[in-house]
Amino acid sequence: MKIDNYIKNNKDHFLKDLFKFLKIKSISAQSEFKKEIRNAALFLKQEFKSIGMDKVEILSTKKHPIVYAEKIISKKLPTILVYGHYDVQPPEPLNLWFKPPFEPYIKNNKIYARGAADDKGQVFMHIKAIETLIKTNNIKFNVKFIIEGEEEMGSDSLSNFLSKKNNLKLLNADVVLVSDTEMISLKNPSIPISLRGIAAMDIEIIGPNRDLHSGVYGGAVANPIEILCKMFSSLKDENNHIKIPHFYDDVIILKDKEKDNIKKIPFNIVNYKKEIEVKELYGEKGYNTIERTGIRPSIEINGIWGGYTEKEGFKTVLPTKAFGKLSLRLVANQNAKKIAEDCKKYLLNIAPKSVDVKIKIHDGISNGMLIDTNSKAFVAAQKAIQKVFKKEPILTRGGGSIPILSKFQEKFKIPIVMLGFGLPSDNIHSPNENFGIDNFFIGLNTIIEFYKNFSNSN
Amino acid sequence: MKIDNYIKNNKDHFLKDLFKFLKIKSISAQSEFKKEIRNAALFLKQEFKSIGMDKVEILSTKKHPIVYAEKIISKKLPTILVYGHYDVQPPEPLNLWFKPPFEPYIKNNKIYARGAADDKGQVFMHIKAIETLIKTNNIKFNVKFIIEGEEEMGSDSLSNFLSKKNNLKLLNADVVLVSDTEMISLKNPSIPISLRGIAAMDIEIIGPNRDLHSGVYGGAVANPIEILCKMFSSLKDENNHIKIPHFYDDVIILKDKEKDNIKKIPFNIVNYKKEIEVKELYGEKGYNTIERTGIRPSIEINGIWGGYTEKEGFKTVLPTKAFGKLSLRLVANQNAKKIAEDCKKYLLNIAPKSVDVKIKIHDGISNGMLIDTNSKAFVAAQKAIQKVFKKEPILTRGGGSIPILSKFQEKFKIPIVMLGFGLPSDNIHSPNENFGIDNFFIGLNTIIEFYKNFSNSN
Repeated sequence: MKIDNYIKNNKDHFLKDLFKFLKIKSISAQSEFKKEIRNAALFLKQEFKSIGMDKVEILSTKKHPIVYAEKIISKKLPTILVYGHYDVQPPEPLNLWFKPPFEPYIKNNKIYARGAADDKGQVFMHIKAIETLIKTNNIKFNVKFIIEGEEEMGSDSLSNFLSKKNNLKLLNADVVLVSDTEMISLKNPSIPISLRGIAAMDIEIIGPNRDLHSGVYGGAVANPIEILCKMFSSLKDENNHIKIPHFYDDVIILKDKEKDNIKKIPFNIVNYKKEIEVKELYGEKGYNTIERTGIRPSIEINGIWGGYTEKEGFKTVLPTKAFGKLSLRLVANQNAKKIAEDCKKYLLNIAPKSVDVKIKIHDGISNGMLIDTNSKAFVAAQKAIQKVFKKEPILTRGGGSIPILSKFQEKFKIPIVMLGFGLPSDNIHSPNENFGIDNFFIGLNTIIEFYKNFSNSN
Repeated sequence: MKIDNYIKNNKDHFLKDLFKFLKIKSISAQSEFKKEIRNAALFLKQEFKSIGMDKVEILSTKKHPIVYAEKIISKKLPTILVYGHYDVQPPEPLNLWFKPPFEPYIKNNKIYARGAADDKGQVFMHIKAIETLIKTNNIKFNVKFIIEGEEEMGSDSLSNFLSKKNNLKLLNADVVLVSDTEMISLKNPSIPISLRGIAAMDIEIIGPNRDLHSGVYGGAVANPIEILCKMFSSLKDENNHIKIPHFYDDVIILKDKEKDNIKKIPFNIVNYKKEIEVKELYGEKGYNTIERTGIRPSIEINGIWGGYTEKEGFKTVLPTKAFGKLSLRLVANQNAKKIAEDCKKYLLNIAPKSVDVKIKIHDGISNGMLIDTNSKAFVAAQKAIQKVFKKEPILTRGGGSIPILSKFQEKFKIPIVMLGFGLPSDNIHSPNENFGIDNFFIGLNTIIEFYKNFSNSN
C-alpha cells in the first residue's frame, strides 16, 4: 500500500488511539497520579508493540518510568533516535477549561486536551509515522524511541540515565529528533536553531531575629527587603546590560548571515504589546525584541517576598527576613554552571555584613543550545518542510529551555533536530491546551519526509 | 487621711480593680470583641463614678466609644487632661503565652496580661491617683479624662472627635498628660521629649496582563519586581541618606545642649546587637544609633511580594505584578503629608513607561512631635521624677509614633507631657505582656507629685 493511502485510510484510527493516550492523567508533578503515569507508560509499550517495534521496554527509574522502543532494520542503515515525553503539566486552574482537561474533544478542527500539543500529540505523530512506514514496508532506517515521564518536572531520571555508559550505547544513533516545540504558523513554517540554557537560584536575606518595630529600630538596623532590592537592582545597569563580571565573555557574536536570518522572523510589535497588554517594551539597549529573547542572555526575578504581605492594611515592621528567586536564561557557549556561581558571588558581595545571605543554586542547570545548520540532519529537516509546506522554513531562536536536549547534545555529539508542529495559540501549560488536526497530519507527513531525506543522505 | 496611708491601705483594692479591667478582652482590631470593648468602656464609667468624678460619659463614635470623665474643683484652678486608651493589641500568637492573656496573674512582682502596660495599667495609675486625692481631700486642680478605644487601630474616632470645635471646648485644659510610654529603667528614669511622625504607602507595579514565561519573554518585557526593587533601592544613597528631594529641608539641627542630652542616654551597642542578633548595625552615615532612631527621619520597606513566593521549588515566571509597602518615620518640623507626596512623586519618576504604577498613601499620617522642655508642665514632670526617683530624668527621643498626640498638640497648643512608667522588657504588643507592680505604684506616686507641682506652678 502507498504511504498516502495508509494515512488516509487510518486517519480515524490514529486519532482514536491518540484520544486514548490523552485520556490518561499522566501528571508527573503530582504524586497522586503515579498510577496514571504508569498507565501512560504501559499504553505506550502496547502501542509500540502493536505498530511492530522489535524491542519495547519500560525502564524503571527512581521516579517515573522511561519507555524505550527500537526497530533495527540493519546495522548498516542510519539510526534515528526520537525523544519525547508522555507526562503533562498539571491542568489547574480547572475552572478555566471549557471541558475537563482529560476528556479530549475536537472543535474547529483542533484537539482539546491537556498534553494535546505538549507533548503527547507530537510524540504520537512519530509513532504513527513509524506505524505507517512499517505497515507499508517503507522503513529503510533504524529507529529508537526514548519517551520519558518527567519532562515537566526537570527530567532528573533521564539525566541520570544518560550519565551511564551502557545506556548511551543503547541509545546510540545518528540524530536526535524531537517534536516538542512550535512553529510561527502553518503559513510560516519554522525550525528553532537555538534554545537558551537556564540556571535558577533562591536568595534568603537574614536580618534581625524577629520582625522589629519600624519606629523603635527604623533607620538603625539593616532591612532585609532593602538589601535584597539593592542586590536585585545591581544586576543590570541603566541600559539593562547585566553587570555580573565576565557575564558576556562567551556570548557568540552573530555573523552577517545569521543576522539576516533573524530579520526574516516575522515580528509585529503592535500585536506583541497588545497581546500582553504593555505600553512599552523594555530590555537591553542595542537589541530588538527577537534578539533580546533569542540571542541575548537575560536575568529575571521570578519571585520576592518579605515582611507584611497582606494587600489590605499595613504593619510597620522592619522584617526579620526577605526571600527572592531569580533565573538566568543563557545562550549557547555560555557555561551555565560557572555563570550561576559568578552571579551568586556578585550578589553576596553587594550585601553588607549587617545581614546574613544564603544563596542556593538549584539543580537542573543547563547550557544554551545551538543547532548546527550545516549538518545532514538539519538539511534533511529543511528539505522536508520545503517539500510539505512548499516554503523554506524560517530559522527561529527559542528563548526557553529544554534542559534534557543540552544533555543529549553534550553526551552524544550528534545533531539534534527540533521538528515541532505546535503553534503559539496551543495554550500549552495553560487551560484549554489544543493541537490542530492539520498540524498533526502535516507534522506526520513532514516527519516521514525527514526520515526519508535523512536515511537517503547517510 | 494622709495620701501615703491611703495608697498603702488600698494597695490590694487597687490591684483587684485593675485585674477586673485586664480581664476584659477589649481588642479593638477584631470585630468579634465589640461587646468586650463596650464592657471596658462601661467598666471605666463605673470606675470613674465610684472614685468620685462629677461627670462621666460614654461618647458614641462610628467605631468604639470614648470615655470622658471630669472633676471640676474651681474654674480658677488649672485643668489637667489625662489621655489614655482602654483597647489592647490582639494577643496572637496565643501559644507563646505562659498563661491566657486575659487571665491576669502576678509573678516576680509583675502583673502579666495583655494591656498590663499598654495601656490599661498606666491609665489605671491615673484613676487611682485621682481616687487617692479625692478620697483624702487633696485635689486642688481640675481633671478631665479622655480614654479612647481605638489607639491600637489608628485613633480614627478620636481624631474625628478632635476636629469638632465643641469637643475641643469640652476638653479645654492647661496640659495633656499621657502615660503610654516607657522609661529606660527604674534606675534610669526618663521622659521622652520627641516622637517621630509617620506616613505609609502601598505601591503596586502592574506589568504584563499575566505571568509570562521567563524564557519566551525574559529580557524583552519589564519585570514588575525588578522595577519595584529599583524604586526601593533609589530611596537611599551609598551613605544611607534619603534621596527624595528636599527630604531633610525642615529637619531641625540640634543645639549643643540637646546634643549633650542625647549623650546622656545610656546605650550599650554590644547588648543592642545581641538582643536582636545582628552582626553589625546599619544606617545613615554620620549618626549613631540613638540619633538614627531619635532625631533622624527614616524609611523602611515593611513588605514586598510578587511572582512565585513558595519557599520550595521554582517557577520561571516574569510576573504580572509586584507589591510593596513602605513607611516613613519623620521628625518634628517635617510636614508628613508633603513628604509622603514627595516620596510618591519620586518613586513614580523612577518607573519606566513599560509598567503602570499605583501608589496609595494611607490615611493616618502624623507629624513628628517635639516637647517644649521649658514649659511649666515639663518642669513639673522633671521635678516629680526627681522627687520620687531621687534622680534627674534622662531626656529620650522616641523613634515610634503616637499619632493622636500630634493631633492634640496641633489642636490644643498646650503642653503635652509623656509620663510613662513602662519598661523595655514589658513585651507590649507581644506575648506575655507585663507591668511591674513597683512601676505601678512608683508611677502612681510620680503622677501625684506631677499634679501637685503643676497645680502649684500655675
